[in-house]
Amino acid sequence: MPKGGRPAPLRSTPADPPVTHASLALSAALREVSAEIDRRFDLLLPVPSDPREDLYRAMRHAAIGGGKRLRPLLVFATARLFGVDHDPMGRVATAIECIHVYSLVHDDLPAMDDDDLRRGKPTVHKAYGEAAAILAGDCLHALAFEILAHEETHPDPFVRAELIGELARASGAGGMAGGQMMDLVAEHKSFDLPTVTRLQAMKTGALIACAVEAGAILGRLAPEGRTGLRGYAHDLGLAFQIADDILDATGDEEKAGKRLRKDGAAGKETFLTLLGLDRAREQARMLVDQAVEHLRGYGAEADLLRDIARFVLERDR
Amino acid sequence: MPKGGRPAPLRSTPADPPVTHASLALSAALREVSAEIDRRFDLLLPVPSDPREDLYRAMRHAAIGGGKRLRPLLVFATARLFGVDHDPMGRVATAIECIHVYSLVHDDLPAMDDDDLRRGKPTVHKAYGEAAAILAGDCLHALAFEILAHEETHPDPFVRAELIGELARASGAGGMAGGQMMDLVAEHKSFDLPTVTRLQAMKTGALIACAVEAGAILGRLAPEGRTGLRGYAHDLGLAFQIADDILDATGDEEKAGKRLRKDGAAGKETFLTLLGLDRAREQARMLVDQAVEHLRGYGAEADLLRDIARFVLERDR
Repeated sequence: MPKGGRPAPLRSTPADPPVTHASLALSAALREVSAEIDRRFDLLLPVPSDPREDLYRAMRHAAIGGGKRLRPLLVFATARLFGVDHDPMGRVATAIECIHVYSLVHDDLPAMDDDDLRRGKPTVHKAYGEAAAILAGDCLHALAFEILAHEETHPDPFVRAELIGELARASGAGGMAGGQMMDLVAEHKSFDLPTVTRLQAMKTGALIACAVEAGAILGRLAPEGRTGLRGYAHDLGLAFQIADDILDATGDEEKAGKRLRKDGAAGKETFLTLLGLDRAREQARMLVDQAVEHLRGYGAEADLLRDIARFVLERDR
Repeated sequence: MPKGGRPAPLRSTPADPPVTHASLALSAALREVSAEIDRRFDLLLPVPSDPREDLYRAMRHAAIGGGKRLRPLLVFATARLFGVDHDPMGRVATAIECIHVYSLVHDDLPAMDDDDLRRGKPTVHKAYGEAAAILAGDCLHALAFEILAHEETHPDPFVRAELIGELARASGAGGMAGGQMMDLVAEHKSFDLPTVTRLQAMKTGALIACAVEAGAILGRLAPEGRTGLRGYAHDLGLAFQIADDILDATGDEEKAGKRLRKDGAAGKETFLTLLGLDRAREQARMLVDQAVEHLRGYGAEADLLRDIARFVLERDR
């Protein structure tokens, strides 16, 4: 039993970095959050015995048992700063993950990125057909707002409405889906660095930022007190995307559980093509340092947020 | 100038039914609501000069200048019973129409109903490609909730959260999108009358009922006072769908502005195949009478709702 009753470390392989206090807490948090999100999706999506069976199976296939659960973890790590109760955090984390998962299902469609593999499994349209995949995405999209609107998410309807407004803005044409449109255009148009930065700030940054913002909203932190957390989320989102570009170019498909080298094949400009590998790595490191610096107003209670930022550079999937 | 300063009647053609007080008010309301929804979408969806241009054009193509605007009209007609202000009604009507429009864009996709024509125009994926159509649908979906969450929709966040919960439930796996899944399954499975009724109550009924419910929520009508309006909406939704099946089998494609005879071609069971034309017509008439009967607690202020129910039987598109 490890000292202090902390959870046992994950099985160590020769490739693992040395286990530190910080990475230990992060591994435990990642496992806990993943298990909780899986459990919540399992309860939310019981397969009915009626003709919608495949719709629910498709939603479960997409939502359960995979992914890093980075956005849920950010909700938990932020909301815990303010002593928020567990159940509201879990509900909000699940709602945001609904949006992330629906976007993966739609992005994988043949008309979009046309991917057969996701999280090491066949993509939803490969397993259940395109029509079910489109509808499963739509249903997860609606489910996100159904969860947030429910009074169990927070007794104060003002908090619920604020969470919903944030999530809708982050996921729509001004955020995630708008960024995905830009990404499709990038296949036949050459973007410069500011445009790629804006694209990525929308496509992945907006929802990452929303997860942190949602934690702050649950914590009843007034908007003027959110500057540090917003700065953290912004820099984290960009660092995450640069790391993703590096992973796409240099990573291991088997570990990643999805097709890589897509950007190069599509002739897209990315942080990597625009900056080169060395400057991209340096840029990501700098952004992570900046993200951590934004948390200077917080003490040890924000260590998990700091660890998440550092983890972004080390991940291999 | 007609007596009483009412709007001039629409140009009469030999095929028009005799112009009555009721149909006059309904025509005027339909025109007013259509113009208002178009105006609101026009303001909500300005085309940006960035790579998302086609995304916004696709949304505008889908949302502006077409359709009966039945759901928005139901929001207005119901909310007016309770003296609700104009702007909240307009915002809620637009949000619900966002969901209806996104569902049409996704349903028309090649993997779903594969339609080339909608409201007399090419479908969105025909005009802008499948990827833009999927994303335009997703963005309209998010926009609906963004509109509702905004404090301009209603000063009381409890009302906003209630509207959002209703719309999310009506449009997700337990409502519209779940019904669409059943409809796809119906192409290769023979459904009985109760299953077809449930399918249609979900696929089209849920959003129609939501429009009426939203009017009542805006009017601060307590849930226990909504029984009559709910009964009205339920029967109206079914009558609407039976009329739609009849139109699909007997209507004029040019007037309808879309491909007809699809259900027959797909070998699907519908109210028409299960009941036959005469009994289907009779059933729709009975449902309309029942819908009107549910409004017995209301006086002349509910005449527009009564007219809408009767209009459902007469429409030719």
